[in-house]
Amino acid sequence: MGRLEEFTVRPDPADARLVERVTGTDHTAAAIVTSVPVERPLTLFLNRQEVVTMMTIGDYPECLAVGYLANQNMLRADDAITAIDYDDDVETVVVRTERRTDYESKLRKKTLTSGCAQGTVFGDMMERFETVRLDTAAVVQTSWIYALSRKINSQPSIYLEAGAIHGCVLCEADRPLLYMEDVGRHNAVDKIAGYMRLNGVEPEGKIFYTTGRLTSEMVIKCVSMGIPILISRSGFTAWGVALARQAGLTLIGRAKGRRFITASGPERIIYDADPGEVAAERRAVQRKASLAEDAV
Amino acid sequence: MGRLEEFTVRPDPADARLVERVTGTDHTAAAIVTSVPVERPLTLFLNRQEVVTMMTIGDYPECLAVGYLANQNMLRADDAITAIDYDDDVETVVVRTERRTDYESKLRKKTLTSGCAQGTVFGDMMERFETVRLDTAAVVQTSWIYALSRKINSQPSIYLEAGAIHGCVLCEADRPLLYMEDVGRHNAVDKIAGYMRLNGVEPEGKIFYTTGRLTSEMVIKCVSMGIPILISRSGFTAWGVALARQAGLTLIGRAKGRRFITASGPERIIYDADPGEVAAERRAVQRKASLAEDAV
Repeated sequence: MGRLEEFTVRPDPADARLVERVTGTDHTAAAIVTSVPVERPLTLFLNRQEVVTMMTIGDYPECLAVGYLANQNMLRADDAITAIDYDDDVETVVVRTERRTDYESKLRKKTLTSGCAQGTVFGDMMERFETVRLDTAAVVQTSWIYALSRKINSQPSIYLEAGAIHGCVLCEADRPLLYMEDVGRHNAVDKIAGYMRLNGVEPEGKIFYTTGRLTSEMVIKCVSMGIPILISRSGFTAWGVALARQAGLTLIGRAKGRRFITASGPERIIYDADPGEVAAERRAVQRKASLAEDAV
Repeated sequence: MGRLEEFTVRPDPADARLVERVTGTDHTAAAIVTSVPVERPLTLFLNRQEVVTMMTIGDYPECLAVGYLANQNMLRADDAITAIDYDDDVETVVVRTERRTDYESKLRKKTLTSGCAQGTVFGDMMERFETVRLDTAAVVQTSWIYALSRKINSQPSIYLEAGAIHGCVLCEADRPLLYMEDVGRHNAVDKIAGYMRLNGVEPEGKIFYTTGRLTSEMVIKCVSMGIPILISRSGFTAWGVALARQAGLTLIGRAKGRRFITASGPERIIYDADPGEVAAERRAVQRKASLAEDAV
């Protein structure tokens, strides 16, 4: 497909299906009202087989379904999707394919991963991981890292409105393209994977930005999606770093204000920004900043 | 058992099995060395049945195993544990019980929850949830909330050393008793549940402190463990709040510095502290503070 516009997908904190107002009391015993993200179940079927029930904020169910199946290797690159039936009332989404599928044995093997678990992420996901060759021509300019952080953190979002949510953003150079949020970080990743698959977005030259930790699961997914550069505000696990080095992924963590650390793939980084000129993040757009409550 | 001492269990950031040193480059292209938490697989068996593979930092495998099984309702309150065999080499832990167990059908039903998923957390966990009667005599003084935050965040921890890890703490009044950390938050919760079960620690009058979000899963687990008060530095999901109200759990979120919000069960709170006297948290002990890197 053609060039995507900046924030082709962006959060919609004004959507009343995604954010609820709840009452409470604050530290002075005053009554307040505050916003919190919605969390609801969505049960995924692949053809006739129930695969999993996900706790999700509920937007982009088709992307979530397709991205989950793709990232779990249950949907092959050459699989033709014949229908995606989402039913809001019974909270189900059914993906139908030309190929007859049966993952009974796969569904019996479970691995809980560190950063918001997936049922079956290891095993054959590692097989795919080992075959991926990431784009060696891709680069990331340090000015892009600062520009992306600034644009993403100042974009109105459910995070800024209600907290308690993860965000993932597919980017190209200094342009955020697809910004998905979800109460489960794995869901935010899968929604981007699903959008890419359904819209033919190529991974080469792209940058994946996430608010979550750089664990083994996050690295495996990014590599499996074919994206050569992964940036997070959060830190690393040792296995996340080891897997990134094995795959030749550029792994940048603890990216806050002017600081960041590259733990893998530094050869893709072009130092074109003067960190001294990068202002400390404005408090107003800091992630993890206190949320506003309204007195009642 | 008798009264537990403060920090009977505490993190051990000096343990080289838990924290690794990795090299990298910083935002100025300077070479650095930094600490990151370890993440390794641990496969859990209940008698002859393989239950799940967990990604964990790897300390307290016996507590993790027993707590996981208890929180998944695979270990009944009256089950006699005859052995717990942990094998570091092959990364397995086997819990053996007098009762013959078979959870084949249960293991086929999977739900991914929002805050670091569990395989089978819903379904029969909700049945147990609905039968729990939480301690109505329990209270929490606001001075305890401030004291607990201060003590927990100034305690040396893997978080302060290496980041990218969750912490959970079982507390009583203003005393942190059991402080567990793990790369998976669900593991930190389960390790506390396992310690409580293996050492006969009662939940009545206790307070559960976590760094993670107050999602449906976290609320269900806390209620199932019989703990009447749940405090987090992070925010709420709508369903987390709804479930806390249904169960009569006191749910306190966004507890940072002098601020916090009570979204459920305010009747247990005693406002004995003057928030004006609570100093803003010192930066040195703030969670999510930047970690130190050593130049090389």
